[in-house]
Amino acid sequence: MVLGGARSGKSRFAERMAEESGLGAVYFATARPGEDEEMAARIDHHRARRGSDWTTLEEPLQLAELLVREAAADKAILVDCLTLWITNLMLEEWDVEARCEELAERVTSLPGLIILVSNEVGMGIVPENRMAREFRDHAGRLHQKLGEVVDEVYLVAAGLPMKLKG
Amino acid sequence: MVLGGARSGKSRFAERMAEESGLGAVYFATARPGEDEEMAARIDHHRARRGSDWTTLEEPLQLAELLVREAAADKAILVDCLTLWITNLMLEEWDVEARCEELAERVTSLPGLIILVSNEVGMGIVPENRMAREFRDHAGRLHQKLGEVVDEVYLVAAGLPMKLKG
Amino acid sequence: MVLGGARSGKSRFAERMAEESGLGAVYFATARPGEDEEMAARIDHHRARRGSDWTTLEEPLQLAELLVREAAADKAILVDCLTLWITNLMLEEWDVEARCEELAERVTSLPGLIILVSNEVGMGIVPENRMAREFRDHAGRLHQKLGEVVDEVYLVAAGLPMKLKG
Repeated sequence: MVLGGARSGKSRFAERMAEESGLGAVYFATARPGEDEEMAARIDHHRARRGSDWTTLEEPLQLAELLVREAAADKAILVDCLTLWITNLMLEEWDVEARCEELAERVTSLPGLIILVSNEVGMGIVPENRMAREFRDHAGRLHQKLGEVVDEVYLVAAGLPMKLKG
Repeated sequence: MVLGGARSGKSRFAERMAEESGLGAVYFATARPGEDEEMAARIDHHRARRGSDWTTLEEPLQLAELLVREAAADKAILVDCLTLWITNLMLEEWDVEARCEELAERVTSLPGLIILVSNEVGMGIVPENRMAREFRDHAGRLHQKLGEVVDEVYLVAAGLPMKLKG
Repeated sequence: MVLGGARSGKSRFAERMAEESGLGAVYFATARPGEDEEMAARIDHHRARRGSDWTTLEEPLQLAELLVREAAADKAILVDCLTLWITNLMLEEWDVEARCEELAERVTSLPGLIILVSNEVGMGIVPENRMAREFRDHAGRLHQKLGEVVDEVYLVAAGLPMKLKG
């Protein structure tokens, strides 16, 4: 798992990790580009950086299911990112905690390399907006759950990783 | 001192530290559960996790005084958390800086194990609300003061500690 | 480069680094004190702490230019801080990305010690305000750029540095 603030270089660090693995690199986007101009620009920017050796998957909601289907010993799957996935689940009013629990259970038994990128969103002031507080709580709880079960955890700042586990 | 973002696992890390100390574990809550439904739910959640070996103290304002009275060589006192305490002091219009100074002075000479949990709140955008900025400043200054005098400091993310001191 | 949250002790850590270098300490302020009472109070507070051995430069916009002019083998220049500089560039509608690129290019070839202090602002909830999001993006990208080229990077919390590079 690769955590980091906004524009911390976490995706780039994760991309390098996938590329250096020597496995077939798969970019798994949880974003829904159609809905937001800023987001579409970011996705294009990410895509341009990665180059053509990558294959791309897109799935805003059924993350665990698609990981189970796609994971393979010869693949490095980079999920970018968990916080957007949580946002999508909340917007669709799915049971976020159950889905996060499911992801944490499934992810440890998958073959190949799975790199989960997520935003650290809990180190600012308590948001006034209730939905933002719930989002922050879901994200933090998911990071804790995954922190327990995954092999390696990094926190990235200024493009530089701090290893928290592994 | 254990710092961490919202839902970072800081309380849980601190609880484990208290339990592994072999000392009599005391949970010192600075929250005022009566006033806020979300907060009451969190306190219940924390209480259920800790189990019955813990004794509980509650004091929203006179933190240093109660620590001086309760600290003992055979106790591990977990204060959860300093940022709520600062909020309470601000709401009651007490002199926050003087109280923080007092806490930093008193805490180093107490017997037993004292674990101070606090929220890292300064790594987001500057809040537009003046009171939130003041809160953030008080919290940051208290963390600096305590960072100088306490024996160990941890920053927790995804349930995993980074040791900053000790 | 020294990163840290609000009131994290990053400036103080940077000041100590400059003083311990044995070089002539120069404080390079990017703030515009005239415009904001809170800011003026902070600058006074910083000035009182540093004492009279420091010389002071002030420049809200032309940071790279002034660094090129002032840097010398016998000087330790502390720039405080990059995030305020970005704010100033945005307010004046200068090309922030071009200026940041220029700074990252220039700064590595300068003589003496250059200490760049900046706020970590990306670890909270996504700001609702578009300008705040842009600011956060600029800051994060600049930190990444500098993280690649500078010799040492620290992240400070509770007055305590975590070394990310160097």
